[in-house]
Parts: sequence; structure tokens; C-alpha cells
Amino acid sequence: MYSITVSHHFMVAHSLSGPVFGPAQRLHGATYVVEAELCADALDANGIVCDIGKALDMLKAVLDEFDYRNLDEVAEFRGRNTTTEFLASEIHRRLAARIAQGALGAHTVNNLKVVLRETPVAWATYEAPLG
Amino acid sequence: MYSITVSHHFMVAHSLSGPVFGPAQRLHGATYVVEAELCADALDANGIVCDIGKALDMLKAVLDEFDYRNLDEVAEFRGRNTTTEFLASEIHRRLAARIAQGALGAHTVNNLKVVLRETPVAWATYEAPLG
Amino acid sequence: MYSITVSHHFMVAHSLSGPVFGPAQRLHGATYVVEAELCADALDANGIVCDIGKALDMLKAVLDEFDYRNLDEVAEFRGRNTTTEFLASEIHRRLAARIAQGALGAHTVNNLKVVLRETPVAWATYEAPLG
Amino acid sequence: MYSITVSHHFMVAHSLSGPVFGPAQRLHGATYVVEAELCADALDANGIVCDIGKALDMLKAVLDEFDYRNLDEVAEFRGRNTTTEFLASEIHRRLAARIAQGALGAHTVNNLKVVLRETPVAWATYEAPLG
Amino acid sequence: MYSITVSHHFMVAHSLSGPVFGPAQRLHGATYVVEAELCADALDANGIVCDIGKALDMLKAVLDEFDYRNLDEVAEFRGRNTTTEFLASEIHRRLAARIAQGALGAHTVNNLKVVLRETPVAWATYEAPLG
Amino acid sequence: MYSITVSHHFMVAHSLSGPVFGPAQRLHGATYVVEAELCADALDANGIVCDIGKALDMLKAVLDEFDYRNLDEVAEFRGRNTTTEFLASEIHRRLAARIAQGALGAHTVNNLKVVLRETPVAWATYEAPLG
Repeated sequence: MYSITVSHHFMVAHSLSGPVFGPAQRLHGATYVVEAELCADALDANGIVCDIGKALDMLKAVLDEFDYRNLDEVAEFRGRNTTTEFLASEIHRRLAARIAQGALGAHTVNNLKVVLRETPVAWATYEAPLG
Repeated sequence: MYSITVSHHFMVAHSLSGPVFGPAQRLHGATYVVEAELCADALDANGIVCDIGKALDMLKAVLDEFDYRNLDEVAEFRGRNTTTEFLASEIHRRLAARIAQGALGAHTVNNLKVVLRETPVAWATYEAPLG
Repeated sequence: MYSITVSHHFMVAHSLSGPVFGPAQRLHGATYVVEAELCADALDANGIVCDIGKALDMLKAVLDEFDYRNLDEVAEFRGRNTTTEFLASEIHRRLAARIAQGALGAHTVNNLKVVLRETPVAWATYEAPLG
Repeated sequence: MYSITVSHHFMVAHSLSGPVFGPAQRLHGATYVVEAELCADALDANGIVCDIGKALDMLKAVLDEFDYRNLDEVAEFRGRNTTTEFLASEIHRRLAARIAQGALGAHTVNNLKVVLRETPVAWATYEAPLG
Repeated sequence: MYSITVSHHFMVAHSLSGPVFGPAQRLHGATYVVEAELCADALDANGIVCDIGKALDMLKAVLDEFDYRNLDEVAEFRGRNTTTEFLASEIHRRLAARIAQGALGAHTVNNLKVVLRETPVAWATYEAPLG
Repeated sequence: MYSITVSHHFMVAHSLSGPVFGPAQRLHGATYVVEAELCADALDANGIVCDIGKALDMLKAVLDEFDYRNLDEVAEFRGRNTTTEFLASEIHRRLAARIAQGALGAHTVNNLKVVLRETPVAWATYEAPLG
């Protein structure tokens, strides 16, 4: 199995609801360093999984939808906890949608893993096949 | 699949028996940087795999059982080589036991991977499902 | 010259005022990874610059004053931009005050440098002698 | 499952053919930081996956075949794009051949993953079982 | 003293002349990860050393002059060894020229340090005051 | 000012005497990741501070004097605390002696800084001019 990974970051404010979150129930923030790993069983005629420039641009475009925002005020996240795990799956969903719409051009990608690093000692992932 | 990872470190002395270990047969030591990745198929109602604070406290409690010790003098390791691979599996066993005893509270974790980094150019892992 | 450095992190929300800040004028957040470097011309009788355990506890205590907070609502920062540079100097000020009050016990520290890392591609420092 | 990973690096020049590569069609170069992860279901009598010294020496020997070279002038790569993905699979092939020839001595390795890091924001992997 | 640092990378081919360079006399390449540290004695009215967005754009613009090129064919480097040390000083010279031309807008920067990382175990720096 | 830095690591056991060291009074160990920064005011005719291959070999030779040893049993350290700060100065002393004996060949180095990283959150340095 082959994969390529691209990485970028974004900075947001948010708060989390529920006693399990302790002080993170207060409005605070995070720098999330994101890795998107695109997996494929074989390489294309160019010898690549996909255009790595397009992959990095796509990741930056998705993260730009979050960057420098207060997630507590994003309409579609009302009533949800924007935990690191949830954000990993949400970024996965948005990347998968863009790939389905052709953002990578021709490619052989069939699986996607998203990693979100929030501190040097804590990170989360979400991984699922592409439809 | 979702996962969260927490990281901490410990510092021990030990020696390894057998010619395959070369100079590591002498009493020496290591700083082990440990990552514990907790995997789950779904998130709970809070939007998490488990309480990340509890996960980090649990990891620190297990590593504290080793920290600042000479593993050659730990009774239960007599006659065993405390290799990086073995220590990864031993830390996995101790984390799994604590999880079984409720250390994480409610959670959806069904798989655990432990990474031990011993130098910038060498590390080991042990991964197994939780019972 | 000798130094020891200890590192910890904190997570805050804030916004910055002034067109120079572009999208960072919106409420957003950051994980700041902090390094405090304590410098000395000579070691003490124990062979150390200072008690590194005390140094790490002191750093954690200062960062806990910021952690999981919205800096826009901290009274003493009203009317100021809590830029990375400013936060580095403010953490320096608070560490220096604690050192003056004895937080390190006996020590030979005469200079302090504080580094704040906000993304993988941007960080700030403040360095000054201790009084 | 157990694994050990060893890491080393190499520095090469090359160019890539095809409009998908944009400016990378020009002769340029890269420092590749390589990780070779050797997986096994069980440890041997010494408590290891394999001799980590032999594993690191083997990796260095394979990377030395590429190091300080212009890949455009390596005969066996004529007509191929030496992409990061391809190089990961080629290094995998060479490591697997050396393992088959006994480079690790006795071992329990049954799977090999190779990671090539080319910049802080881009890397590729190739993973396959050993025959 | 305050500083901010921004980081980016570039990928080049080159060769080095002279027996001291051993195998690096052959055409090879490198990924250089660059850090530009901009120092100042005081912050401006916005609470910053300079506009960090402008600083990162400036660094990217300078590195783009090298990126994806064979330095052996760059006219102005003919007859010179493009060592890591030399490249650090050359990037310093180009950044200083752009700052003198106003690339940072208003700022308080009076010293510049450039770091070039070529492998995980080797890097070079050049530091000098700004005119 | 120019500098080049080379890095390598070593693994030792030791204990520290005095109540300030808490649990580190017990025999334990550490992986020390070492950086040796060699500074010069100008480059030589080859465009370098010194032969980086010789610098890395020299660092490895000095660290090999410590590697895989119990520092409590090294005769010349009897009665001393082998703290991270002390080890940084001792490695500085040994590197400086080798440089004085010609280990770098021709060079322009006039200052040396040694960094020892012992955990992800703690490190020490020693810096001094060369004689």
C-alpha cells in the first residue's frame, strides 16, 4: 500500500460542553496541526498517488474554512462539541467531498486518514475509506 | 476509526543479556518517550473517544511505576530482557488492566497501540485489541 | 555560560486589534508551546543551574494562569494586544517575579529567555537579565 | 503486533517528467529522511523483533546506494519518475531483498513499512508483507 | 530583546568543489528548512516586532528564488561553493535587502539570524545586524 | 557570525546525590541527544566553518566515550554529580581538546555551544569560547 501525507495548521477558539471537559468548558483555543494521509493500492502512470500540490492546496482550502474562527459561533456546529476527534472526522468529510468533486484530478486514492495535533502530548485521528 | 493519543516519558537504567545486544549488555539507560493511542469505532455522546485528561493521568501513573528505576532490580523482570519491544508490550498490559478496572470511566476504546521512542533513530511499538 | 530549559504549553482564545493582524482580528485561539531558558555563569555545589523540578513546576504554575482562558476577558490585558511577543514578555515578567520571591530556592540564574511557539512555522521570544 | 523502526537520511538530485510536477520538472534535489518499520507477530527468545543494530546498518547500506547521487543518471531508473512514492517502494524492495539474504540474521519480521519525509509538510509511505 | 521567527523550506540540486566535501562533490541535492529570526529591542504600538504575515511572505519570496533549481547553473553562484553556511548568508543578504526596501512595512527589527537545516543531524546559521 | 551544528546521541545510567534531585537519587538512566554548535566569524576558502564530516565524527567519538555506560562507575566522575549541565560542560571540554589537537583540520571555529536534550521538556547547554 502507498500513501502520501500533506500537513498544514489552523487556529481556532471554542468551548466544550459537559463536566468531562473540566477547564476546557471555558472559551479557550488551539493551534491544530493537521496531517491528511491519502492511501492507494497502486501508483498512476506518473508514479504518484496523486498530485501532491493539489493535495496540499485542498487541505489548505478546507482548513481555511475554520482558520481564525470561534467554532462556538459556526452555525453548523451548534449543539455539537467540536472536540479534536470530531474535528478530525469533519475535516475528513470535507476533504472526501472535495475529492469526490475532483479536487485531486486523476488519482488512485481509496482511503483517507486525518490527524489533528493539539499539544505536544495529545492528538486525535479519524480514518475511513473513500466512497 | 477514531483514535486519541497521549504522550509522556520516563527514564530508566537497565542492561540486556545476550551477544546480540553488543555494548547494550553493559548497564546503561534510556529516556523513553511513550505514546499511547486509544482507538474506537465511534465517539460517545460527548463527542470523544474517552476523557483525554484521564488517559494522560493513566499513562503517567503507569510510567511512574518505571520512572527513575534500574529495571535490572525490578523483581518481576528478573530473567527477562527489558527490551524496548518488551517494555512496549508491558506498558500495554498495564494500561489495558487499568482500563479494565475503570481508569478511563465510560469510553468506547477497543484497541490500544503503545510506541516507545528511545533515540531519534529508533523506536518500537506494541498494538493489540482490548479484551 | 550554562543554561537549563524547561517546556510546557497552554491553550487560549484571543483576538488582536489593528488592520496589521488581518483575519487574526477575529476571535480565534492558539496552543502556545513555551520554553523557559534559565542561564547562569556557574553551577552550584550540586552541579546544577537550579532545581529543574522546581523550574518546571514554576513554569506550569505561570502558564496555568493563562490556560483555557479567553485573553480578551482578562482584566489586566484590556486595551493591549496579546501578541505572541507580548505574551513572551509577560510570561518572562511573571517567571522573574516568582524567581525573585524564591520559587527556585537557591540558584545561580541571572538571565531568562522565553520562547512561545504558536504554529510549526512561527514563534516569538523575549530575553532579559534577571534583576 | 510488535514493530521496531530505524531511521536514517540521504540527499539526492533528480527531476520529474510530466506537467503534473510543475516546477519539480526542473533538476532539483531533496533530503529524504527515511523510516523503516519492521513488524512481527511475536518476539524471539532475546525479547526482540530483530537485531536493531543490524536493522540500522542495513538501512544505511541501502540508502548509501542513493546518497549524494543524481537519480536522473542512475541507469536502472531511466524512463521512470523517481517520485517519493516510487523511492519508498524501491527502498522497500531493496530492504526486503537484503532481509531475504539474511541481513537481519534470525528474526521474526513479516511486514515492512517505509516512510520517506521530503519536507516538513509532505511525506510518502510504502508498506507490504515480506515474502 | 524580542524576536519573531518564521520558517519555510526549499529543494535544490548542487555539487561542491574541493576534496573536503568527499561524496558531496557529486551532483546531489537537499531539502533546506529555513528559519529567519527577526530581532528587536522593543515592540511597536501594535505590540509586535513586525507583521508576521509580511515576514513569512518575504521569506517565501526569497526561497522561491532558489526553489526547484540546480544551484550549479545559477549564474551568480558560478565559481562559489553553495555550502549550507554560504546559503544561510546569501538568504540573509536577500532578506536584509528586501527589509531595506520596505518589505516588512513599519518595523523595529535590528538584527537577523538565518538557520538552514539540511538533515536531522546538521544545520548552519548566519547572523548579523541590519544596516 | 556563522555556525554549523552537528547532532548525535548517547545512552547512560547514573544517579545523582543530594535531596534536590528527589527520585533521581536512585540509579536511573537517560538518552541524551547532543548538539554541538561550532561558531566562526568568517568562512574559509571552501566556503565552510569546518569539515562537517569531521565535526560529526568528532562528536560521535566523544559521545562513544560515554555511550552504554554507568556514569557512577566512571573513575573520573567519582564524587561529582553527572548532571545534564555538567555533562554539557564535560562534552564541551572534550570537544575543545580534540579541536586543539587538530580533529577538525583547518577551521575558523572560535566558539562552541553544547546542548544536551534529556526529555522532550528539559535540556541544558554549555557555551564558551575556544582557547
